[in-house]
Amino acid sequence: NAQLNPTTADLSTPPTDHRTLAQTHSLFITSPYSPGSPLILPNGAYVFQKLQSFLRAQYPQFGFQEVITPIIYKKSLWEKSGHWENYAEDMFSVQGRGATSQIPEAEGGEDGEFGLKPMNCPGHCLLFRDEIKSYRDLPVRLADFSALHRNEISGALTGLTRVRRFHQDDAHIFCRPDQILAEIEQTLKFVGMVYNTFGLGPYKLLLSTRPKDSFIGTVEEWDRAEQQLATALNNIGSEWAINEGDGAFYGPKIDIILKDSNGKEHQTATIQLDFQLPQRFDLQYQASPEELEAGSRTSMDAGLDPSLRRPVIVHRAIYGSIERFMALLIEHYAGKYPFWLSPRPAIILSLNSDPKVLAHVSHIQSVLSGLTPQDAPVTSSSSSPKPLPLSTIQLPIDVDISDRSLGKKIAEARVKKYNHIIVVGGREVESGSMNLQIVNQPNEEVTLEVLENSLGNKLTDKDRT
Amino acid sequence: NAQLNPTTADLSTPPTDHRTLAQTHSLFITSPYSPGSPLILPNGAYVFQKLQSFLRAQYPQFGFQEVITPIIYKKSLWEKSGHWENYAEDMFSVQGRGATSQIPEAEGGEDGEFGLKPMNCPGHCLLFRDEIKSYRDLPVRLADFSALHRNEISGALTGLTRVRRFHQDDAHIFCRPDQILAEIEQTLKFVGMVYNTFGLGPYKLLLSTRPKDSFIGTVEEWDRAEQQLATALNNIGSEWAINEGDGAFYGPKIDIILKDSNGKEHQTATIQLDFQLPQRFDLQYQASPEELEAGSRTSMDAGLDPSLRRPVIVHRAIYGSIERFMALLIEHYAGKYPFWLSPRPAIILSLNSDPKVLAHVSHIQSVLSGLTPQDAPVTSSSSSPKPLPLSTIQLPIDVDISDRSLGKKIAEARVKKYNHIIVVGGREVESGSMNLQIVNQPNEEVTLEVLENSLGNKLTDKDRT
Ligand SMILES: [Zn+2]
Ligand SMILES: [Zn+2]
Repeated sequence: NAQLNPTTADLSTPPTDHRTLAQTHSLFITSPYSPGSPLILPNGAYVFQKLQSFLRAQYPQFGFQEVITPIIYKKSLWEKSGHWENYAEDMFSVQGRGATSQIPEAEGGEDGEFGLKPMNCPGHCLLFRDEIKSYRDLPVRLADFSALHRNEISGALTGLTRVRRFHQDDAHIFCRPDQILAEIEQTLKFVGMVYNTFGLGPYKLLLSTRPKDSFIGTVEEWDRAEQQLATALNNIGSEWAINEGDGAFYGPKIDIILKDSNGKEHQTATIQLDFQLPQRFDLQYQASPEELEAGSRTSMDAGLDPSLRRPVIVHRAIYGSIERFMALLIEHYAGKYPFWLSPRPAIILSLNSDPKVLAHVSHIQSVLSGLTPQDAPVTSSSSSPKPLPLSTIQLPIDVDISDRSLGKKIAEARVKKYNHIIVVGGREVESGSMNLQIVNQPNEEVTLEVLENSLGNKLTDKDRT
Repeated sequence: NAQLNPTTADLSTPPTDHRTLAQTHSLFITSPYSPGSPLILPNGAYVFQKLQSFLRAQYPQFGFQEVITPIIYKKSLWEKSGHWENYAEDMFSVQGRGATSQIPEAEGGEDGEFGLKPMNCPGHCLLFRDEIKSYRDLPVRLADFSALHRNEISGALTGLTRVRRFHQDDAHIFCRPDQILAEIEQTLKFVGMVYNTFGLGPYKLLLSTRPKDSFIGTVEEWDRAEQQLATALNNIGSEWAINEGDGAFYGPKIDIILKDSNGKEHQTATIQLDFQLPQRFDLQYQASPEELEAGSRTSMDAGLDPSLRRPVIVHRAIYGSIERFMALLIEHYAGKYPFWLSPRPAIILSLNSDPKVLAHVSHIQSVLSGLTPQDAPVTSSSSSPKPLPLSTIQLPIDVDISDRSLGKKIAEARVKKYNHIIVVGGREVESGSMNLQIVNQPNEEVTLEVLENSLGNKLTDKDRT
């Protein structure tokens, strides 16, 4: 395996395990009733969804279209894709428990055996071949956040990193052979943009090439494809290396290997070419005038009408498993989440139980959460709720109005690692302000500005402790 | 069954079936490999997600917290909840296919048998009891959009209305008995707000009360609960009726029955009290001083320490099955989707293949999609992509730059029922404007304003045809 750069310069303090950090922020729990399928608590679901929404927001500019596909498919689909045989150890099978399910299909029973999907690819192949495609329709880029299941042995299961149920930011690009270079280059840029946003990296890109003995297609086809991958890697200018002969039998791939703050390597994103599935699913498109003129045909096209070609499939994931990526980020941020991703951006503590203080607490909560415009009156009747627009960004702002001492409340808020602690007492009610402690905030200045804007008040030094 | 008001005054033209309308808009397909699990195409997934995001945006103001829970649980969980026995016909069972899965658990094998979840309630009970709850923590309101599976017989499966795999906007409210009234009233308001947004209704509310023979708890407990439901129904002032004795054995419920434009009745939203699951899962909270003083204990509390009480569970769904709700909306709007929900809000057609025209087409697409600020230059280099913020609302604006005649392109766009058809030729390039046809737009004036704002141009009569 190639040498990697560390992701941080300082390895002297190894980070706390993501399971411990996740407890502090109440992100998830596990249960003996669902080994390998963690139950994700509200705070964890909040982070999960931010990660999902962030990627979703980028999909249109990269031409990805999201689809929603089944979780179970008949055994016959998995036989066609080859998973039923080659992936047997990792798959779960599914059967109806009802009376008609027990009768074999041949004798007029129900649908028999299903497989719980470990991957989205076969479903996306069904979508691709639903309509006859022209060369102009390509590339088709289908994205899917569906739940996937793989049967890891129970002894190996750990937190969010070794699980049986997980979600990938999965996508499949169906393209012409001449589009591989452009698609790979765009995908590598997408990876760079995302990892940069989270401050992850540097990472190493590894190109795995044709295996020595068993592979499909011809040596020339592999060479051409690997050449396009190498050109894409050179074009984006990141450091990369070759893993000679380490490709799958059905195509070369690029792995993104990230070293975490502990020095441990994680394979996160993958970009994998596939010459096999298009044949198994008999995928085709009407060739372009250029392809027809050149008479270019690959071994994949054998048996096809001369006017037709097979697309290449690119399997790609940028986060990889969202659960594992979350675990990485949990350790990477070690509690100091950026504001937009933070499961605990702020808590408001009441100094006493004066009704005016409590009303002001709830007003500030409502304004900071995004639920109330800043100029709304402090008391609002909730008699007739109004729908909030989709563009509203809502933040989980918490409140502690228990009658414990302020010291105890602050101590607990610090243990729970809120980014901001806001104290409201009589003085704050009078001045319409708040008393702010910035505790775990990587980006203080911007945050102050945002808070001032939402409150409509300049925060003075007096407001900060 | 009670009499219902029709949802529209005019029943003279029955609406087209949702499966036909869905084909026009390319919303979903079905496959023999996944009977009852439709494959939702990009346009359908777009509508699905808008529905999901809309509800999600409302959750904070109603105090719901979203969680992400497993899809498969061990058989023992379903035995505890009672589903394994009582719901056998409708459930799928799941087993690992690997070697260790085949060995019985007792002999050191893997986890044995799992159930594919038909409902979220048992998982939410596991979450509730993870931490000891105080009376102050209640109500706990957990929401979940997880995929659910129920094994309908294959002959009954239809489009999006009779399926095996679906998603509910499911939630469970864990509350004290004295909180039932307030929770039900808020939930009914939530239902009203949502149905009003989609222009659905009127609907009928049906209160199903204690069954005659078999029920858990005491008559007094049922009377008290039903009284709270009735008061909530009266408080919100909608029309409602009683379905005497039609409640489940474990609690009374309120069903929302909607009549579609065809006159057919649909049970969509449900609000169901449950006195049984809290006992099966031994859910408890520390009683409030008032509860302790009154010494109030229900039959659910039998066997509990005197300082503890059991919460009541309210199962509630507002859309019900999102798939079925989508089918309803598809028929309700019959192609004239409101702009924010429309899978085909607009298409831009090029008049010719002049590079300037094509550049202007792609500029307008980019601006209307929300991908480019309106003042960005027409030519933009895509060399280094920038992440888009989460608050960006992106619209699926399509383009047809094929070299077919304008007449053919317009005809196809009309068949596909785009809300807006925009034509761009040389004249539009010069004036920086566009030629707009409003075709299927329920809200013309607002739309014009929005378009003008995003383009930064006043649209003249000349621009509209
Ligand atoms: Zn794949
Ligand atoms: Zn339920």
